[in-house]
Amino acid sequence: MEPRITLLTLGVRDLDRAVAFYRNGLGWPTSYKPGDGVAFFSTAGTRLALYGLEPLCEDISPDTRPAKGGFGGITIAHNVRTKEEVAAVLTEAERAGGQIVKPAQDAFWGGHSGYFTDPDGHHWEVAWNPMMPLDDAGFMTMPDA
Amino acid sequence: MEPRITLLTLGVRDLDRAVAFYRNGLGWPTSYKPGDGVAFFSTAGTRLALYGLEPLCEDISPDTRPAKGGFGGITIAHNVRTKEEVAAVLTEAERAGGQIVKPAQDAFWGGHSGYFTDPDGHHWEVAWNPMMPLDDAGFMTMPDA
Repeated sequence: MEPRITLLTLGVRDLDRAVAFYRNGLGWPTSYKPGDGVAFFSTAGTRLALYGLEPLCEDISPDTRPAKGGFGGITIAHNVRTKEEVAAVLTEAERAGGQIVKPAQDAFWGGHSGYFTDPDGHHWEVAWNPMMPLDDAGFMTMPDA
Repeated sequence: MEPRITLLTLGVRDLDRAVAFYRNGLGWPTSYKPGDGVAFFSTAGTRLALYGLEPLCEDISPDTRPAKGGFGGITIAHNVRTKEEVAAVLTEAERAGGQIVKPAQDAFWGGHSGYFTDPDGHHWEVAWNPMMPLDDAGFMTMPDA
């Protein structure tokens, strides 16, 4: 299995609302049209998709049910190039209809970060990590494996 | 906010067990050493991290608790270049200690796919999608946005 994540799919309660958040609010590119059953976003590298939570459960298996309340166990990070951008991106997400759950602050690991949730409660971390600076494509420089 | 996912962090109950699954089982590159509090994998594009579920909750906010049971609402997809690779990757994940929750099968959308869960129950889709073939870097060809 090649070390690669191709696509991240977020299960959502209201597809049009979720598309509005990412496309209109954050300005992310998609060819989604109303009536499409799924939205794909042309994110760099790993793509982002939005799909109804119920059909996503059905696609996995007849026994799959959404977890109750709380945090689903996965965070999606958007790293930025400067410390100042962390607060700016959190504000942008809040204006788009997201909720800031942790305001921008210095992190114990030496960076600066915060979190917001999208309209379906998916958790995004916005982080500046000076130990793993971003390359030209916007991806983290990794220590040699 | 640039259209980019930098990092995906999976909250795990046992970090060494989770690292063993991804590094030893699937063969994914990481510089993780026992005692490190977090594992980063040098995946293409969006990086993968493993981190304890409890500290991940604490990092988000004092009020954050893991959801109870069930599906967390996010699927991570690994797309492959041929239909036959879907079953092969699922088998590889099962041998590594994952669980196949949907065997490889033709999908209603015209491709071929299945799902496995990792030792912490995170859902991975393995998919062949002839409508969005992979480019040289292994990412999906997107329709014009």
